[in-house]
Amino acid sequence: MKKLLLLVLALPSLAFAQPAADQAAAMRDAALSGDTLAWELLESLTTEVGPRLAGTEAEGRAREWAVRRLTELGFSNVHVEPFEMEVWVRGEERAEIVAPFPQPLAITALGNSGATPARGIEAEVVHFDSVAALEAAPDETVRGRIVFITHNMQANQDGSGYGPFGAPRRAGPSLASRKGAVGIVIRSIGTDYHRNPHTGVQNWADGVRPIPAGALSIPDAEQLQRILARAGERPVRMRLVLTPRNIGQRQSGNVVAEVPGSDPQAGVIVIGGHLDSWDLGTGAIDNAAGVAITTAAAHRIMQAGQPRRTIRIVLFGAEEVGVFGGTAYFERHRGDGNVVLVVESDFGADRVWRFATNFTPANADLGSRIQALLAPLGIVRGRDRANAGADLGAWATAGVAAVDLNQDGTRYFDYHHTPDDTLDKVDPAQLRQNIAAWTAVLAAAANALEPIAAPGPAPGRKRPKARPLRPHQRRAAPRGP
Amino acid sequence: MKKLLLLVLALPSLAFAQPAADQAAAMRDAALSGDTLAWELLESLTTEVGPRLAGTEAEGRAREWAVRRLTELGFSNVHVEPFEMEVWVRGEERAEIVAPFPQPLAITALGNSGATPARGIEAEVVHFDSVAALEAAPDETVRGRIVFITHNMQANQDGSGYGPFGAPRRAGPSLASRKGAVGIVIRSIGTDYHRNPHTGVQNWADGVRPIPAGALSIPDAEQLQRILARAGERPVRMRLVLTPRNIGQRQSGNVVAEVPGSDPQAGVIVIGGHLDSWDLGTGAIDNAAGVAITTAAAHRIMQAGQPRRTIRIVLFGAEEVGVFGGTAYFERHRGDGNVVLVVESDFGADRVWRFATNFTPANADLGSRIQALLAPLGIVRGRDRANAGADLGAWATAGVAAVDLNQDGTRYFDYHHTPDDTLDKVDPAQLRQNIAAWTAVLAAAANALEPIAAPGPAPGRKRPKARPLRPHQRRAAPRGP
Repeated sequence: MKKLLLLVLALPSLAFAQPAADQAAAMRDAALSGDTLAWELLESLTTEVGPRLAGTEAEGRAREWAVRRLTELGFSNVHVEPFEMEVWVRGEERAEIVAPFPQPLAITALGNSGATPARGIEAEVVHFDSVAALEAAPDETVRGRIVFITHNMQANQDGSGYGPFGAPRRAGPSLASRKGAVGIVIRSIGTDYHRNPHTGVQNWADGVRPIPAGALSIPDAEQLQRILARAGERPVRMRLVLTPRNIGQRQSGNVVAEVPGSDPQAGVIVIGGHLDSWDLGTGAIDNAAGVAITTAAAHRIMQAGQPRRTIRIVLFGAEEVGVFGGTAYFERHRGDGNVVLVVESDFGADRVWRFATNFTPANADLGSRIQALLAPLGIVRGRDRANAGADLGAWATAGVAAVDLNQDGTRYFDYHHTPDDTLDKVDPAQLRQNIAAWTAVLAAAANALEPIAAPGPAPGRKRPKARPLRPHQRRAAPRGP
Repeated sequence: MKKLLLLVLALPSLAFAQPAADQAAAMRDAALSGDTLAWELLESLTTEVGPRLAGTEAEGRAREWAVRRLTELGFSNVHVEPFEMEVWVRGEERAEIVAPFPQPLAITALGNSGATPARGIEAEVVHFDSVAALEAAPDETVRGRIVFITHNMQANQDGSGYGPFGAPRRAGPSLASRKGAVGIVIRSIGTDYHRNPHTGVQNWADGVRPIPAGALSIPDAEQLQRILARAGERPVRMRLVLTPRNIGQRQSGNVVAEVPGSDPQAGVIVIGGHLDSWDLGTGAIDNAAGVAITTAAAHRIMQAGQPRRTIRIVLFGAEEVGVFGGTAYFERHRGDGNVVLVVESDFGADRVWRFATNFTPANADLGSRIQALLAPLGIVRGRDRANAGADLGAWATAGVAAVDLNQDGTRYFDYHHTPDDTLDKVDPAQLRQNIAAWTAVLAAAANALEPIAAPGPAPGRKRPKARPLRPHQRRAAPRGP
């Protein structure tokens, strides 16, 4: 009897939370076996809006879609928080080998690429297998040529190749321009073997003249390497036509919706993904999936009765081109003082395999309850500190609590930023597992009776800057679009 | 003793052929473990020539490449047998949904497609799930519209879906035009989920007016079905820009090379694949693989010492656009009277899983020897009658002996006729298994001491026509490009 009493005293919150935990587990299992809302939203956004490049009329249609759907679903306080941004749009894009082995290559422009004349440019190709090799090369080997950079990215479950092997895209163009190149083509930052090049943003370093910058599909990049090898002493000449342009200031915006909580003092949980997509595909994995996952999970919480904490969904604009929506949201609301937890979904819809938090010891028990709820879904607890994603990362960096639900990224970079990012790449069963995991986490966190404590600024990370970054100010970052 | 004598008397050819069989087995095993020539030829043709559409300057470069490489390898009687043909070339190709859900779709023109004006056409889309459904529809439901035909092709190991499910491409355009459609788009005849549409030839029935005819990639075809379903009563309008054109008579040709046999009376074995490719990819599986496989296997026979029978390699021109090279070769040489066996490779380079012959009972023993040589490679004997492929099929139909070495086609139609038909789709180990199988078959057949008998015309097949077919005369056929 004494023993039992001691046990109960020692685990007060666990004992206390058991009915809530049972309810969360039931909600999780219902989502796993029967969620249809996420798929419906995913199909609706990718079909009825399709590609939705930041700042374009198509992204505007996506906001209208989101406001309509969130309102119909019964969320509260549905509204748009607009912001202005500079918009870059794609033009024609062609590459061909002129000599010694004439043939076309599949290419797409990188974000903020400079433009060639309409007739294109023609120059000799010079190959480097890394940014470091380009950096080390004498300028005269680069001047007047088209730089070609390759890399060795492999598919990893945690997506960790994207940071280091993305350097050719992020740092290559500015470096090539500085050294006098007339253009740059990179091996797409990806892991597939299809002739769909991977676009993605890059930003010119201060004072650097923009040059045409494109990504070859991976089969085409390997073809170019073979052409260079078989050409021997003969120069390999490429003709490049890339005619993107800046169309000036346009409107983008974040769409916000809420499940109001019963206790205004308990703080707000902010969740979300981004509404915009690259223009090449319909943005199913990047990031209609995040829109669908966060909305469907929040809807389940709402349907189960009013939670203690408010859950706020933010569907961000203009993530791909520079995290403009995430930055605008942080700048606008960082002073509100009521955000206690951020959770973001922006890595497709394959199964969640791992989760992480940045909780303080005061929230160890909440972390354990989440761990227990996720274990039946096959989810392990990671040792890394949670840092949210591109859009909500500023909050975690600034010291707000975060939970990361890591999707399996093994095939994510097969499709990422390509024409191939389409609905068929999402597996409905894995999508349901995501909803189950999200529903469990939101149920546990929104109804936790203990406070969710702020862990404080992430060690070793810079404080977020005070103002939204302009494209020319952005730098390479391991986390980002 | 008596028993042993009887056994030897009962199996004279097997007993006789044992040293030859041992040699063939050794040659097979050497190819399996160590062939490098096939890969080198495959890489060379796809890299140094790349895409090589029939009748174009690129196909001419492929013939020059073949003459040079076959000569360097030491083959005899290397020469080109030219022929003239009408040439159709691709122009611009774009499709977009104008209403109610504006977005671009990935499309490519089918061979011999008619052209739109440069600004395109715009019309309502009307969907049919089969050619039969289109045929049954009243003309007024089609007139002035863009027909969209889908199908249910699945991947099969033997590629058997391509015949029946290829009907939308082969029969759809003429039927749609007859019914007054202003254009037709089909679900690509393929089995992948990438945004690479599958082109392929189609020929206008007599008296039919050509209309723009394109293939949507499979993700785009499914997207269009979803758009139609979600549009409800609203018409779905498409803008279509396809500007291919006919550039008139050009030269193509077949490249021929021989391993001369020691016995002119023993007949000639004709083997081959086709040199031309569609313009979208580099034609690695279709059909640089066939060029490489037949050449590398014949080279192994040549290196092992003079065979009894002449082996003649024919690398055909203009297969994709209407089997013009195969037809020209048959018409030119059908009267020679010395072709005793035909073997063709035109189904990629995945492993050979099955073989078949059309041998007469007189060659049952040769069939058994081939079966024994192929069994260690995991190859089963099929029950179908061998019929060679598109280019050499006329010979089998006319009554010449044939051996088919069937490649595994499970993933063949993922890449067939798309931009994705590139070198990386070939597995070097499976390619070596092909060389091993081909080397074994050629060694057995070229050195067989018994005559190779003509089985006579295939039952139920029409005699080949006397003259090469023009595009407008071609009909749908289960075997073909």
